[in-house]
Amino acid sequence: MFDSIHEECGVFGIFETKKRNVAHDLYIALYALQHRGQESAGIAVCDDGVINYQKGAGLVGDFFTKDILARLGEGNMAVGHVRYSTTGGNNINNIQPLVVRHMKGNLALVHNGNLTNADELRRKYELNGAIFHGTSDTESIAYSIVDNRLTAPSIEAAIETTMTEIAGAYSCIAMSPTKMVGFRDPNGFRPLCLGRSKDGGYILSSESCAIDAIEGTFVRDILPGEIVVISDAGVESIMTHVGKRKHTLCVFEYIYFARGDSYIEGVNVHQARITAGKILAKENKIDADVVIGVPDSGLDAALGYSMASGIQYGMGFVKNKYIGRSFIKPSQEERRNTVKIKLNVVKEVVKGKRVILIDDSIVRGTTSKEIIKLLREAGATEVHFLSSAPAFKHPCYFGTDVDSEENLIACKYSTNEEIAKALGADSLSYLSLEGSHELAKKEGLYFCDGCFSGNYPIDVPKGIEKNKFEQKITK
Amino acid sequence: MFDSIHEECGVFGIFETKKRNVAHDLYIALYALQHRGQESAGIAVCDDGVINYQKGAGLVGDFFTKDILARLGEGNMAVGHVRYSTTGGNNINNIQPLVVRHMKGNLALVHNGNLTNADELRRKYELNGAIFHGTSDTESIAYSIVDNRLTAPSIEAAIETTMTEIAGAYSCIAMSPTKMVGFRDPNGFRPLCLGRSKDGGYILSSESCAIDAIEGTFVRDILPGEIVVISDAGVESIMTHVGKRKHTLCVFEYIYFARGDSYIEGVNVHQARITAGKILAKENKIDADVVIGVPDSGLDAALGYSMASGIQYGMGFVKNKYIGRSFIKPSQEERRNTVKIKLNVVKEVVKGKRVILIDDSIVRGTTSKEIIKLLREAGATEVHFLSSAPAFKHPCYFGTDVDSEENLIACKYSTNEEIAKALGADSLSYLSLEGSHELAKKEGLYFCDGCFSGNYPIDVPKGIEKNKFEQKITK
Amino acid sequence: MFDSIHEECGVFGIFETKKRNVAHDLYIALYALQHRGQESAGIAVCDDGVINYQKGAGLVGDFFTKDILARLGEGNMAVGHVRYSTTGGNNINNIQPLVVRHMKGNLALVHNGNLTNADELRRKYELNGAIFHGTSDTESIAYSIVDNRLTAPSIEAAIETTMTEIAGAYSCIAMSPTKMVGFRDPNGFRPLCLGRSKDGGYILSSESCAIDAIEGTFVRDILPGEIVVISDAGVESIMTHVGKRKHTLCVFEYIYFARGDSYIEGVNVHQARITAGKILAKENKIDADVVIGVPDSGLDAALGYSMASGIQYGMGFVKNKYIGRSFIKPSQEERRNTVKIKLNVVKEVVKGKRVILIDDSIVRGTTSKEIIKLLREAGATEVHFLSSAPAFKHPCYFGTDVDSEENLIACKYSTNEEIAKALGADSLSYLSLEGSHELAKKEGLYFCDGCFSGNYPIDVPKGIEKNKFEQKITK
Amino acid sequence: MFDSIHEECGVFGIFETKKRNVAHDLYIALYALQHRGQESAGIAVCDDGVINYQKGAGLVGDFFTKDILARLGEGNMAVGHVRYSTTGGNNINNIQPLVVRHMKGNLALVHNGNLTNADELRRKYELNGAIFHGTSDTESIAYSIVDNRLTAPSIEAAIETTMTEIAGAYSCIAMSPTKMVGFRDPNGFRPLCLGRSKDGGYILSSESCAIDAIEGTFVRDILPGEIVVISDAGVESIMTHVGKRKHTLCVFEYIYFARGDSYIEGVNVHQARITAGKILAKENKIDADVVIGVPDSGLDAALGYSMASGIQYGMGFVKNKYIGRSFIKPSQEERRNTVKIKLNVVKEVVKGKRVILIDDSIVRGTTSKEIIKLLREAGATEVHFLSSAPAFKHPCYFGTDVDSEENLIACKYSTNEEIAKALGADSLSYLSLEGSHELAKKEGLYFCDGCFSGNYPIDVPKGIEKNKFEQKITK
Repeated sequence: MFDSIHEECGVFGIFETKKRNVAHDLYIALYALQHRGQESAGIAVCDDGVINYQKGAGLVGDFFTKDILARLGEGNMAVGHVRYSTTGGNNINNIQPLVVRHMKGNLALVHNGNLTNADELRRKYELNGAIFHGTSDTESIAYSIVDNRLTAPSIEAAIETTMTEIAGAYSCIAMSPTKMVGFRDPNGFRPLCLGRSKDGGYILSSESCAIDAIEGTFVRDILPGEIVVISDAGVESIMTHVGKRKHTLCVFEYIYFARGDSYIEGVNVHQARITAGKILAKENKIDADVVIGVPDSGLDAALGYSMASGIQYGMGFVKNKYIGRSFIKPSQEERRNTVKIKLNVVKEVVKGKRVILIDDSIVRGTTSKEIIKLLREAGATEVHFLSSAPAFKHPCYFGTDVDSEENLIACKYSTNEEIAKALGADSLSYLSLEGSHELAKKEGLYFCDGCFSGNYPIDVPKGIEKNKFEQKITK
Repeated sequence: MFDSIHEECGVFGIFETKKRNVAHDLYIALYALQHRGQESAGIAVCDDGVINYQKGAGLVGDFFTKDILARLGEGNMAVGHVRYSTTGGNNINNIQPLVVRHMKGNLALVHNGNLTNADELRRKYELNGAIFHGTSDTESIAYSIVDNRLTAPSIEAAIETTMTEIAGAYSCIAMSPTKMVGFRDPNGFRPLCLGRSKDGGYILSSESCAIDAIEGTFVRDILPGEIVVISDAGVESIMTHVGKRKHTLCVFEYIYFARGDSYIEGVNVHQARITAGKILAKENKIDADVVIGVPDSGLDAALGYSMASGIQYGMGFVKNKYIGRSFIKPSQEERRNTVKIKLNVVKEVVKGKRVILIDDSIVRGTTSKEIIKLLREAGATEVHFLSSAPAFKHPCYFGTDVDSEENLIACKYSTNEEIAKALGADSLSYLSLEGSHELAKKEGLYFCDGCFSGNYPIDVPKGIEKNKFEQKITK
Repeated sequence: MFDSIHEECGVFGIFETKKRNVAHDLYIALYALQHRGQESAGIAVCDDGVINYQKGAGLVGDFFTKDILARLGEGNMAVGHVRYSTTGGNNINNIQPLVVRHMKGNLALVHNGNLTNADELRRKYELNGAIFHGTSDTESIAYSIVDNRLTAPSIEAAIETTMTEIAGAYSCIAMSPTKMVGFRDPNGFRPLCLGRSKDGGYILSSESCAIDAIEGTFVRDILPGEIVVISDAGVESIMTHVGKRKHTLCVFEYIYFARGDSYIEGVNVHQARITAGKILAKENKIDADVVIGVPDSGLDAALGYSMASGIQYGMGFVKNKYIGRSFIKPSQEERRNTVKIKLNVVKEVVKGKRVILIDDSIVRGTTSKEIIKLLREAGATEVHFLSSAPAFKHPCYFGTDVDSEENLIACKYSTNEEIAKALGADSLSYLSLEGSHELAKKEGLYFCDGCFSGNYPIDVPKGIEKNKFEQKITK
Repeated sequence: MFDSIHEECGVFGIFETKKRNVAHDLYIALYALQHRGQESAGIAVCDDGVINYQKGAGLVGDFFTKDILARLGEGNMAVGHVRYSTTGGNNINNIQPLVVRHMKGNLALVHNGNLTNADELRRKYELNGAIFHGTSDTESIAYSIVDNRLTAPSIEAAIETTMTEIAGAYSCIAMSPTKMVGFRDPNGFRPLCLGRSKDGGYILSSESCAIDAIEGTFVRDILPGEIVVISDAGVESIMTHVGKRKHTLCVFEYIYFARGDSYIEGVNVHQARITAGKILAKENKIDADVVIGVPDSGLDAALGYSMASGIQYGMGFVKNKYIGRSFIKPSQEERRNTVKIKLNVVKEVVKGKRVILIDDSIVRGTTSKEIIKLLREAGATEVHFLSSAPAFKHPCYFGTDVDSEENLIACKYSTNEEIAKALGADSLSYLSLEGSHELAKKEGLYFCDGCFSGNYPIDVPKGIEKNKFEQKITK
């Protein structure tokens, strides 16, 4: 849905053997990862040990003008980041890449995820006289690496130690003057994969779709706990943290965050969503005339439902693709339905029909209610609402912004019937928790479903107001 | 397809009984008509006889900032326009609404279509000392109305005479200090419809989707040749030009131009495209595993083909929705495939499969060739390419920018087999000319298929280099 | 003073024998004429008969970005204009150059001045079916030229006839596909001069300072009533309107409008202002310690006063040169003195001293009052205020925006003593009317002093609200 | 001169007892200090312990739009900074205020000057694991304060210790959640003064002109070595570092950097420049007709010369005040004189005259040569060129960007006669070193004249390429 919960970041890095315009590769790659974060973007290019960077608020295409992109110059290495800025945006220092100088040289760092012990780490370094320019946990990771680097023989050795100090979700890329190092937390909450560029270089990326965009080749996923070191000597892995924990990937990467054409842990995301629709169909046999999805993220599951049930798949909505950030909303006194401006029902598809409506998830339910109303006004005789994710009932500590419990519709009501009534649907069902574990199958692959079940794979901070800096966006 | 031929305009007008923020209604409506023209936008608001206007290059959301929208102030009437600027954009005076002062007061004019006798008209007025600020035919329409108004008792009477002087395609709205007048050419090449606003006022719009967007109610299509006069006295029609010609709507309005949720002449555009797909299936029985559409405009026909053939509908592509005008293209030496950046194949959907690929039309074929290549690289074993429009072979004189014949792939080759080979497809077929006439059925409704057949419903200029001012955009 | 009355325009044209980047010459020249109009700017370049133009709101340096300037391309001829837009700025069509197409081709027109019969002309052409895109009198001049051109053998012949139809103040440059024609009203209200470019071409300019800026050579002033025709054949003059009227140059060109380094009718503007100060000294013998000018336009007269009186010249103020249009004014509740932000007193210069303060003129007196207050706070023991122009008491019909009478301080009070008291000065005097006629001496040169005396050299409209479109800016 | 050497910074702080819109005060104050740095600007506002800040490249009026200024909100304390960015501008982290979080809370720091031991300090902290986000020495000061604060009982105590660690030139303001602390190096290289706001609060400013701009009252200069602590308890001073060194103010503050209306160490800057002119007159008796200054900074000395010599003061140039950063320079092949575009000679003032030309200083001489050429072209019969500063021959280590020796014209030639010849002047003289010490007189006030004499008041780094990050701008 267009107002869903948010992933907080996408990371990308490229290492070439020769100097060239790697900045433009990053630019294209960040376009391909834009769905993972739309608030800010940044690229750091390493040219013979010197790191130039540009970062700022806005979409990749808004911040990176021709002029700003050109200022990055050429280089043989680059890392980039897109971010869903959760802290109000007035602190430029939270925008990544984080680029710093330390005893042993320069360091650029990009990070997707969320630490669970960021506050303790910050405290520890502050007690030693550290200065923090921003409020992100990424700066704590940088301090840890720099601190360990004072005694460690290499950047990768420093990171190996850092991984014993930091806890939570992190898929990171660090760029030193001569190396690019990717590292992923032992639980593998967030994706990170390796590829080859068409010029023979190496790529690290949150998702494979960005590798495709620059015509590279996907090689493999980075293992949970793995440290991948890319240098002129090629690729090496440090495996000391691998296998220390159960791989608990965030299931919402399949359901909503990742792009349909990406492969994560060997499973195509689009296919996983088709599967979600098929499971929904098995779990919810509904007598209906047409099954439609809420654009864009409900479409795949709707097609899957249609495949499994034999009920006709329909295109029930036209989404106005021109409406973006710059859209000037109607004032209160104009009493306009902004959902209708963004999403018009194709009456022909639903008029006089019993409709199954599928969305990827339900957070507050506000938008869902409006959509169901639009369908009824267009002549749908029944509206059965299905969510291709289980019900959100708990906070996420690993890098997404699930709303606080008092706003979650699934926490407000005790039965699906009550929610259906509140939303104006004839019936409502969520994908079952078990069903969500069937979306992708791989030996040793498990899921974190903490936001649905409340069972977190690692310790989470107690009594802490989780998303204290975050500005909620609800649907 | 994302690089198809272009409609040249969308028009919208609203007439309320009371003064209010009609500018914001126009703003929303132009967003809904944005697909009809993306190069410039403008709004003119009439407040007690005074016409304020703002117009400029760019998308509605780019040009109309909060500040500029606010400068329009309130009013009881407004007209707006979106334009696919075909003249290179350096002449601000071609951007509409055209707002002028004349003997009897102010006049704002918006126009969708193309006159076939614009040059003669221009000459006639120039011989009388007329000054032209721009190069559009709309200025000739304005001169004719103003000239006739010197003796005619009313703006509508002037327009009635003007319609005996102008030839070609025009769906126009004229706004005088007290009236809003819609008029449509006797052939009804371009759509124009009437609606009611939620406050009880009247709406004129190129398409019904814009009426929906501001929560108005569609009333009816304006008849070919009809003049609709909206004033404080309500709505009146002048029918003297009605029924003088066969209604020859541009068939491409259904195939590509109009938005899927719009109704034109009683027929839903999405449904017409589903129908196109069904006809294609009847005309082309192909043994395949999956049928996919080129986003966004090929999707409907692909679904229709699936419905009629029983072959599974698939979502074969992910389109990068963030790539817009500001995207900085790779330089030549970077040898990048920009199609791949915009449109990635979902391998899972096509790998090892025989694929039917449907697009709305084929102009130069350049993009189609790239797409077919991408499908093959993703593992499609066969690619059968279908166009839901007949083959373009002739110029259009009625408001679109069909490419010149030397660029049209259907003019370069004599058989579909040759084109298939050129594009790298296993087979290629177009919708038949007869098939195109089946897309929408209504008593008295015929189609202009001049660009396919070379048979134009009215005289067209001979020996004239048609699109002389136009900047071609090809696919 | 920085909030004085405003000149409405500056014009410039260049004609070269070879095609080159004349647009950049215009750009530099308009920078040099920027003081004559700061609201909008425009340049039209003629390249082999085709006229490209760019115009828009703002200073030359704001509107003309590298990109926009580049779009003008090369050419052998160009005209440009800076404007003090008096109509609120929402009508782009009032920005010059006015570029139109007519029976005989293209025409670009730039105009400095104001017609006294613009309304009658407009009416005349409207009765013939004319359309007006803007509200400026320049469009009426264009209509007249185009109308006469239908029968006249040349553009210059058409202009010769036009000059029998238009009345008032005009220094214009018209550019046809092959010629550049300058023409000046028979009274010569506004300046216009001829120069040679460093490449041997010809220049027409409002002021000689713009000729200097592009390293050209000043040749002579255009005569009142003269038509200068520049073409490949060289320069020719049509003298039929020359000598028909007394030359009555606007005296305020010397006092305030023109730039100090310009020469008008053989007299240097800076020198004329020195002379004004000397005359003030002769007319007003004051016992004082220092004479200071209000920056920037009062400085010259203050130096002149010092020269004639022997009283020490001082630099009493530092003007903040960074404060421009973008300065965000303090809100009302902050009770800030914005004059003080722009203009700080150098205490050392005035502390404990009897000060003579000279400004170029006094309109409303609001700013003058603030300045006098600042001087007293800085320790000046006496402040004697002198205006190097006579008192404004009447409207101007010839191209400036003298405020309406109810706002003019000289209309509110009957004696200088009363005004001095209102402004907080110890004494106040204006330059005498006779004195103003001594600023520049040349055979046959007289001045229009209508705004001071009420005696206008030609008939002015009766009972018409003069500046109806104008947005006042006061001091 | 308009292309002189550059001061690197201006600082300003305000402490009020009540919360209000202090951001706008800073905005006005930074406008008043804009001459001290034009590359970037920033403001940090403290609201009840929370520090909000906005900083960016460009002039105050360019970066601080209404929107950005509003984001700062209200507060009771604020500090701001203008900077002449010497490092190429691609590192946003060098822009001040530097705002960081540390063990004891938030800290905002602004700094004018340059440390001589920045590299050693950086090394020291890096060895302890410190991370540097930028390349400025200000970050080292922050580290020192934060480090000392771990054990010091207060921010001011920490600063007291820091002042034993840092060496060089610094006039700083630090803002903690509850206090504003100003501190100035024991040599007092750069100015810093105290004032009261009109609401009874306290002000710290580089120059008194900024206090005037917000209608505050100048109180006194901060002593060299003094630490001023402003809190709710009022103002307290820590004097432990006072009197430890000879006060060696940068003499160029009087000659060029500071604004004419400012008072530094009790002496008015404009008056000091008048004095420079008078000394020049005593040192150089020249038989001439007129003495003119190069705008804007040579005007005062020219007036002083005129006063002392009796030779008539003249205004020899008109400077185009509209030419700023956005001016598009002519391309090489256009062979344009850009000096002439910016600065036109008023021929009337110099024609046929023996001219004394005074500029504040001579760096490379390139611009001076052009100006002298312009004067000759305008008819000056002799041009005697005087510099109101001694000759630059040595680098500056204390916060300005004196060009490297190979570019300094005074290093290229051994006599004034040779330089005069190189510049095309009839004669050339500099203010004597002794003369420069006479510009301002105060008990205990001495000057640093290291850039003229090579004698520095404190140890300077040996063998280090001084301005390694600096982008030279020459005249």
